[in-house]
Order: sequence, then C-alpha cells, then structure tokens
Amino acid sequence: MNGCVYKSTVERWCVFEVMVPGYSDNNPFVDYDIKGVFQGKNEQVEVDGFYDGDGLYKVRFMPSFVGEYSFKIYGSFSDQTFAGKFTVTPASQNNHGPVRVAYTYHFAYEDGTPYYPVGTTCYAWTHQKPELQEKTLETLKNSAFNKIRFCIFPKHYVYNQHEPLTYPYQGTPDNKNLDFQRFNQEHFRLIERRIQDLMDLGIEADLIVMHPYDRWGFSQMSAEEDDLYWKYVIARFAAYRNVWWSLANEYDVMHSKTLKDWERYAEIICAKDPYNHMRSIHNCFSLYDFTRPWITHCSIQRIDLYKTAESVSEWRERYKKPVIVDEMCYEGNIEYGWGNISGQELVRRFWEATCRGGYATHGETFIHPQDILWWSHGGKLYGESPERLKFLYQIVCETPGHGLKPYHLSWDSVTAVPESQVHQGEYYLDYYGFNRPSSRTFYFDDTTKYQVEVIDTWNMTITDAGVHQGRFTIRLPGKEYMAIRIKKCGVV
Amino acid sequence: MNGCVYKSTVERWCVFEVMVPGYSDNNPFVDYDIKGVFQGKNEQVEVDGFYDGDGLYKVRFMPSFVGEYSFKIYGSFSDQTFAGKFTVTPASQNNHGPVRVAYTYHFAYEDGTPYYPVGTTCYAWTHQKPELQEKTLETLKNSAFNKIRFCIFPKHYVYNQHEPLTYPYQGTPDNKNLDFQRFNQEHFRLIERRIQDLMDLGIEADLIVMHPYDRWGFSQMSAEEDDLYWKYVIARFAAYRNVWWSLANEYDVMHSKTLKDWERYAEIICAKDPYNHMRSIHNCFSLYDFTRPWITHCSIQRIDLYKTAESVSEWRERYKKPVIVDEMCYEGNIEYGWGNISGQELVRRFWEATCRGGYATHGETFIHPQDILWWSHGGKLYGESPERLKFLYQIVCETPGHGLKPYHLSWDSVTAVPESQVHQGEYYLDYYGFNRPSSRTFYFDDTTKYQVEVIDTWNMTITDAGVHQGRFTIRLPGKEYMAIRIKKCGVV
Repeated sequence: MNGCVYKSTVERWCVFEVMVPGYSDNNPFVDYDIKGVFQGKNEQVEVDGFYDGDGLYKVRFMPSFVGEYSFKIYGSFSDQTFAGKFTVTPASQNNHGPVRVAYTYHFAYEDGTPYYPVGTTCYAWTHQKPELQEKTLETLKNSAFNKIRFCIFPKHYVYNQHEPLTYPYQGTPDNKNLDFQRFNQEHFRLIERRIQDLMDLGIEADLIVMHPYDRWGFSQMSAEEDDLYWKYVIARFAAYRNVWWSLANEYDVMHSKTLKDWERYAEIICAKDPYNHMRSIHNCFSLYDFTRPWITHCSIQRIDLYKTAESVSEWRERYKKPVIVDEMCYEGNIEYGWGNISGQELVRRFWEATCRGGYATHGETFIHPQDILWWSHGGKLYGESPERLKFLYQIVCETPGHGLKPYHLSWDSVTAVPESQVHQGEYYLDYYGFNRPSSRTFYFDDTTKYQVEVIDTWNMTITDAGVHQGRFTIRLPGKEYMAIRIKKCGVV
Repeated sequence: MNGCVYKSTVERWCVFEVMVPGYSDNNPFVDYDIKGVFQGKNEQVEVDGFYDGDGLYKVRFMPSFVGEYSFKIYGSFSDQTFAGKFTVTPASQNNHGPVRVAYTYHFAYEDGTPYYPVGTTCYAWTHQKPELQEKTLETLKNSAFNKIRFCIFPKHYVYNQHEPLTYPYQGTPDNKNLDFQRFNQEHFRLIERRIQDLMDLGIEADLIVMHPYDRWGFSQMSAEEDDLYWKYVIARFAAYRNVWWSLANEYDVMHSKTLKDWERYAEIICAKDPYNHMRSIHNCFSLYDFTRPWITHCSIQRIDLYKTAESVSEWRERYKKPVIVDEMCYEGNIEYGWGNISGQELVRRFWEATCRGGYATHGETFIHPQDILWWSHGGKLYGESPERLKFLYQIVCETPGHGLKPYHLSWDSVTAVPESQVHQGEYYLDYYGFNRPSSRTFYFDDTTKYQVEVIDTWNMTITDAGVHQGRFTIRLPGKEYMAIRIKKCGVV
C-alpha cells in the first residue's frame, strides 16, 4: 500500500506500529486526526495515532492475543485510508505482558506471573546526556529494580538547574517561546526509546505525566493544551506494555490544577488507553482519593517525617487496592529531610511496607561533585540499600501463593503471611525493625512442625534455626534489622 | 514531755519528725488516729501521723519557711496530747525545696532553681538485696539522672519472679495470708531510707504507689484497704521534699480499678498531702485525662511502636502542662519490643522530646546472667545512652531562660527555642534525628550576628562553626544524630 510502513509480524504484547504519510500543512498536531482499528480473532481495538513530523503519522497497537490481525488507518490526516494484515507471534520468554492488579492488593503480569514491584526513582534520567542514560540502564540491569518512576516533562528543581537534552515542544525555551500546540517529536522519541530499553530489561516505566518542577510553563498550560498533551502521550506510549500512568508527582503542589482537571485527565486516559495500564497519582501533602474507580493502585508519598511505611496496613484497609509507597525518603546526605536517611533506615522502611502487604520505592540522593544524583539524573548508585532490596525481593519471591498480607502475631513485630486463604498457616515472616530482641517465642499449635530461619536483613544472611513444634523460642543476636521466617513443614 | 522524741532544729524542706508513744492494742493502723499541727510565722500545717510499730507513732512535717515553729500532736492514739517547739534553719547548698511546675510546661524547685528532669526507671530496686541497692545508688550518683521511678509494692513480672526483701503488710505471702489492714513498717522504713538517700543525691523519687504487676493481691484490695494504704503512704512519705506521686504505672491494666477509684485516690492525696507534691498517673494503652485539675504534669507511656517522643508538642498543646515521656522503650536486648532499642534510638527519643519542650525517662533492659536488669532491679548500667543523656542535660542547662519550647523552623528538623518570651530570637537548637544532612541553611534577618555550633549528640562534641549573619549555610558531616545550636551574639 502506498507509503504505509509496518512489519508483517509482531510479538504478543509488543508494539505494532504503522507509519503512513499525511498532511503536513497547518498544524498537523491539532488540525488533523488519525485513528487505527486493529482486528484479531479475540479483540478489536481502536486507537489514536499521532503526527511524528516530516509528513509522517504513526499508529501504535499492542496485541493481546496470538494470531492473525488486520488493521485499518483512517482520519482527516489523509484522503486515503490504509489497511493491512499482520501476525502476532507468541510472547518470548521474558515477556509476560502488561502488569495488572491481582488479588486486590498485588500485581501480576497478564500471563499470570506474579509481579512484585521494587521501584526506584530517576525523575529526569531521560533528559540527561546519552552517556549518563546508558550508565543508568547499566546500573538498572544489575539491580533488583523492576519499576522506575520518571518524568516526561523536563525537571526544574534543586540540583536540577541545567537545560534538558530536548524540550517536549517546538520553539525555544527563552522568553517562554515554546509552542504548546506543536510537539517536539525528538523529545518523545528519546523517551519511548528508553521505555523500550526498560522493557527489554523487564522494568516497568512508571511515567510521571505531569509535575510541578517547572520553569518553562509546562505545569501551567491551558486545559486545551493539557488535553492535547495527554492525548499525544497516550497515542505515543500506550502500546508499550511496561507503561504505567502516574498522572502527576506531587499533584497537590501543582496549584494551577484543580481536582476537576485531574479527573478530566483520568477520563482521557480511560477513554484513550485501550490496554488499561496501571493508573495512579502521587501526592505531596495529602493523599488523592484513591477510592476513585479509575485508580488502580495507591502511589503514596509518606506525609509524616517519622512514620512512613508503617501506615501501609491502614492504607490497604482504607483503599482496598495495592499500596506502593512511592516516596518515603531517599538514602543520601543532602540538605533536605526527604533525601538524607541511611541505607539501614530505607531498607527498614521497605521491610515495614513489605511485611504489611505493600510495596515501596527506592531513591538515592548523595551529594555529588557534578550534582549527579540518582534520584533525578540516574547514573551510578552509591548507597547501601540496593543490594539489600535485592535480598528482600528474593525473599518475597519465595513466599507461598501470591503476595503478603499483614497478620497480628504480636504488638512489637510486624508479621507477614501469604495473602491467599489457601496458604494460611504455612508461612510467617516476622520482622523486628529497629528493635533488638535476643529471642522470640512462638506458639501456633501443638502438632505442626515448622522450619525456622533467622534472617539478618542487613547482612543478608539466612540461618537455619531448626525444626520446631508446640511452643518454641528462637535465639536472635540482639541487634537491629532481624527477621524470623517460619514455614510449615509437616504435621506430627 | 513524756516520751515525745524530736530534734530541736531541722533544715528548711527537710523532714521534721515527732515520735510519741500510744496505744498498741487492737489494730493501731485502723483503730486509732494521730494528727499533728505545725505552726510557724508563715504557715500552719495539719498532717496525719502513722503507727510505726512497738507502741510508737510518728508525725512528719516538712517546713517551708525558716524560723521558729511549734507543734501539737493529738488524736485517739493516746489520752495525752504532745507539744513542742523547734527551729527551722536555712536550706543548705544543694537543698532547693520540692519541685513545682514552672512556666506552664516546665519545673523548678521551690527556691526558683530550674529543674530539668532526666528520669530513669528501676521499678523494684528497693525490694532487692541491700548490696544491690547500694550499687544502684552508686550508679545513680555518677549519672545525670535526677528523677527515678520506682514502686512501693513489690513487683511480679517477667525477670521479676523472686520474692521481695520485705512485704508491705504483716503476715505471710503464702496462700495470700497478708493482712491488708496491718502494715509491715520494715518495708516502708526501707523505702523511706532510700527516698532519703535519693534526696541526698539530689534525685526526685517518682513513687509509683499502685501497679498491676502483682501475685500477692496488692492490686486487688478493697476500696477501704486501698484508702488505708494511700493514707499510710502519704503520712509516711509526704514530708520528704523529693517525693512525687505517680498514682500508678499502667493504671489502665489494673482491671479491678475504675476511673472513680483513681479520682478517689487523687482526692485523698489532695486532701492529705499539704505540700502539693507533683502528681500524675501513667498509662499503658490510653492516656489518662491529663486535663484533670489534680494532675500537675503528664506522665506518658508512648503508645505507638514507632512514633514516641515526636508527639510531645501535640501533648503540650492538648494538656497545657509539663510533658514527661516516662516510658518510650528501654535501651536493651530483651525479647520484648518495649525493652530492646539501641542507645542511639533512646538518645534520639530524648532529643526529640527535649527539642519539643518536653522531658523523657530512661530505662535499661539488657539480658543478664542473674536477671539483674536496671529497669527493675537497678545495679549497674551497661548501655550507651546514659553518658549521652548527661551531655544532653548539660546542653539543656545552658539554654537561656527556663526551659525550651518547639518552634517551626523547617519541616524536616525539630527546633527548640527558649520558652520565655523575653529570650525569643536569642537561641535555636535545631536537631536532625536520623536524618543526615550535609548542610543546613538558615536565615533569620539581615542584621543579627549568630554564634553557631555543630553538635554531635552521639559522639558528644560541640564544634564551633563561626559567627554568621544574613543567610548562611552550615556544613555538617552527613551523619545521623546531629544538631546545630545558634546563639545571638550581637547586632551589626
């Protein structure tokens, strides 16, 4: 077909893209529309396409099923319509599909594989120099992180005063001469390349679509400009299976936006994203109403300086959705209280969240001679927490069933048990945080045998403490950050 | 006068005691009464006396003024009345009188000297072997502790299973054959000797009059027996200037007592203690209503496992009284979460309380081969916190005016300023807890010069950081438990 470019096969849950020529006069971002309809045996999906410059339009689609598909591209962008056929091949080994909510409080990939998020935060990593971006990917590759939060718009904030690699709009940033009706496709291409890189590493891209850290005007556009942006973002990125929509970071300090605005953006996502990617919105001071039906999970910034992940069980109760504490202070030593806790304290907060049936997100903010702080720029990790988070992740992966929930075993420990009813009584993970017990005594029943292990969450050791039954006491070294794992291993 | 024994002089705020013979038939604790009236130029005080065995009764009085006094002893204990005269001499150097509330949130001795409590806890130390009691006094002598919480009744609890040195009642503890209407004066003599020893060391005796840790029945006596006990305790101990009345430890787990009972005991104290010693009551789960007019200060046990002294400013606001967090976990390594935090964490909690204009109480619970834990038995201290509490105490003593109050300087530090209005702007104590800033920036005004010091609260160093004015940044080592002290030193 004349000028219509696409591949004849695509892997299930990967990006199928059709590129077609179209009008480039007027403002193609505003004055023309383009849609695609994709039809397979099990689904028919209609999506918006987008103008990608140079008289070319693109329409992207993520197929959810294996088999033969056809498509049709139409709209005011051209007098022509375009059509074609392609084959969706089975997912390869590390492709499990997009992430969904599972068992109310947890996540799974669409193929059913459990997904236990271990997030990190590099707000502006895609706006840094290419070498630094490559370094970030290399660091991520060797870490346990399987979700990363980052911004589409450039970031203006402490330690972030330089200009970004590219701007999302055409024009010049001087005197605010950016044209909020004409996207700079280069900016978005760079981001989608990084989304793809993350996908290849098995990492979810928790895209922060709006944020308040701004000197260019992106946080103060008109409602029409906002909506245009949202539709463009969705048209470009939604077909990437690893995309999550974080409507905003610190929505409540974006003073030019109202709750009505946030709800309108949410409506746009729900209408335009046919894949139902994860959707949430992240607070500064006051939590968004996570009971809103469009919100798939809680993306929480701790509010209290002292009590952070300790509130996860309350949030689970209140919202009946998965809880991710997406910001609870970063490991580091900068001036600000949000960025200068120890590795021990950050790891403790992860354990507190985990043992309450929630999830948490890492960040790192160490003073750096060139102001390259992982939390914003990516690069290299200097902290002590990441390897401990990998250790925690392994422990979480070894739990029976799918995910943990809080359980009241004692007032002075936090205990996790399997979420699923069928695994009750099989497994207890009892964590002591900054407490330093020299022993702990347990009693479940008289007849069950339990395999007990002592876990040093900081030194990352798991020590066999024998098989026990009835009332039993386990010795501990009387230091911080210990846990005991108890697994049913038989009945006498 | 026939058989009436007393000394002709007594120091102001010390114990003046009159011993007289009386009836010993029937039950002298119940069947006879004895009162004393003490008359000086500035006061007339009536008090109850008590039966001290062997046909002898005692009446004790603490004079609040220097000068000539007379007394009269009367009651059903004897057909006779007794009278006499004595001289009250000025207070010696380390005798500042009883402690009073000062400036709403703080304490002072009656002579006006500020009293900044640094408490500790040895619940059952007076019930241990004499050598151990002597050891406790020696330890206290070399510490910063100037208040100690301990129980009048013996204690039955974990690590406290042995029999006490003495019982408060005559009879035998076996089969509960103690006679709750006949006091064992030996028990009370031992306690009052220790109260006197503490007085000599300048330490307030925060007497826990009732408690739930009991296997002998002391926590389950009848209302009449309780009242008899209260009156006896007050008659014996009230004349010791360093006595504080803690109505109970963990009143809310004494399930056989009601709020009405506690209020009745309070009425007895208010009626019978002419010196208005400090009065409070200590909780387990739920705070007593500290707005009750008889309560002089809040004696709080933290309720949350995580957030403890951080709530002091709220409690100050709510109760408008001095706040002492009398239990906020102990330094140690025992099995239980209330007794196994690190020295760092305990010292942090002290600083958190202090910088919010409150006070805190220490305790120590390390596993010991003979089960001698400071928290209950006294003895020797093994922990790392006591010397850091001495360091903190010195810093508190150096504040201008009388006591500290919380001040909002930033969201991520806790700042103390002088309580008194006349010292505002002179002094800031900015504490960072577990946060690890590499620097902090301040701006108060353009013209004032400030002397700045960096305090390492753990390593107990104070480092001169120079004189600054306008906006200034102070470098810090990027580690935990640091503070900055800023003192006005002139105007340009």
